[in-house]
Amino acid sequence: MEALKKRILTDGSIEEGNVIKVDNFLNHQIDIDLLNEIGREFKDRFKSERVDKILTIEASGIAIAVIAAQYFNVPVVFAKKTESKNLDVETYESQVYSYTRDKTYTIRVSKKYLKEGENILIIDDFLANGKAVEGLVEIIDGANCNLVGIGIVIEKGFQKGGDNIREKGIKLESLAIVDKIENHKVLFR
Amino acid sequence: MEALKKRILTDGSIEEGNVIKVDNFLNHQIDIDLLNEIGREFKDRFKSERVDKILTIEASGIAIAVIAAQYFNVPVVFAKKTESKNLDVETYESQVYSYTRDKTYTIRVSKKYLKEGENILIIDDFLANGKAVEGLVEIIDGANCNLVGIGIVIEKGFQKGGDNIREKGIKLESLAIVDKIENHKVLFR
Repeated sequence: MEALKKRILTDGSIEEGNVIKVDNFLNHQIDIDLLNEIGREFKDRFKSERVDKILTIEASGIAIAVIAAQYFNVPVVFAKKTESKNLDVETYESQVYSYTRDKTYTIRVSKKYLKEGENILIIDDFLANGKAVEGLVEIIDGANCNLVGIGIVIEKGFQKGGDNIREKGIKLESLAIVDKIENHKVLFR
Repeated sequence: MEALKKRILTDGSIEEGNVIKVDNFLNHQIDIDLLNEIGREFKDRFKSERVDKILTIEASGIAIAVIAAQYFNVPVVFAKKTESKNLDVETYESQVYSYTRDKTYTIRVSKKYLKEGENILIIDDFLANGKAVEGLVEIIDGANCNLVGIGIVIEKGFQKGGDNIREKGIKLESLAIVDKIENHKVLFR
């Protein structure tokens, strides 16, 4: 997606540890017009799929998922990372290891909001090692839902998450794939 | 807002400790059509104000803020509750005490995304004791921005957050104000 790649080049930056920082427009300050372009692009890439619900994970996936959901006309469910009194006791869970934070956390979705046989599209901001997405896939499997595909805004193509998903035959659409970071510059696939 | 009140009555529930549970449509599973009605309503209630940016707080404020932002044509910034390698070192911060979790946490916004003199509208899902909103107001003050007002989806009118804000002369618009909970039923103002 050209508009996104351009934006990453102009407003993104590369931080220590090959972190692609896009908090100017994607995950701290949010450009709503760009998000709408992203939402339309996801709809286009999954136009031949039947989608009943979009699943994402808090926090930065939420903005992208709800804007995209307008083009699919479906509700969004987001997996919770933190324990909450307000969450149902009956949940689908998965353990997710975060390389960024070097810790394992539990993600949870109430059993009420994933029904057997529903067609689920996963949407998230980043895909690197793919642990968060694997956790969401485990939850979808646990609920006996059908995984329609995965839509990612920025994939770090030099890490193994994307390839692992593609090898399983899952439809993965990443709007920008960064293949390499050289001298603090990103090179797209 | 009638559609919202109706929805709270039909799909919400009351849990121990006077928790109003609306995870069916607002803060776990998200009904995008209702969110668009909420966004339009916020725009209507703040139509005479100049808004440059919407400020909210992760996680459940994000969905509401980004959908509403479409009607204001402005970007969203969300305060972060968790420390992150990806966050700038230079931040505006505030300490927020959570009654639900019985702990104090730090919320942070990068100094890059709040500029002196900007007109900021706060949007969040719930207002009870008002600690999260007070934290956001402190951040706006620290950045020398102008607080245009506060838009809340559900205010617990029997707790003191809303009155504290109104007493300060801040424009507060709550789309549903719950004045009382009796026998597991909500009574609106």
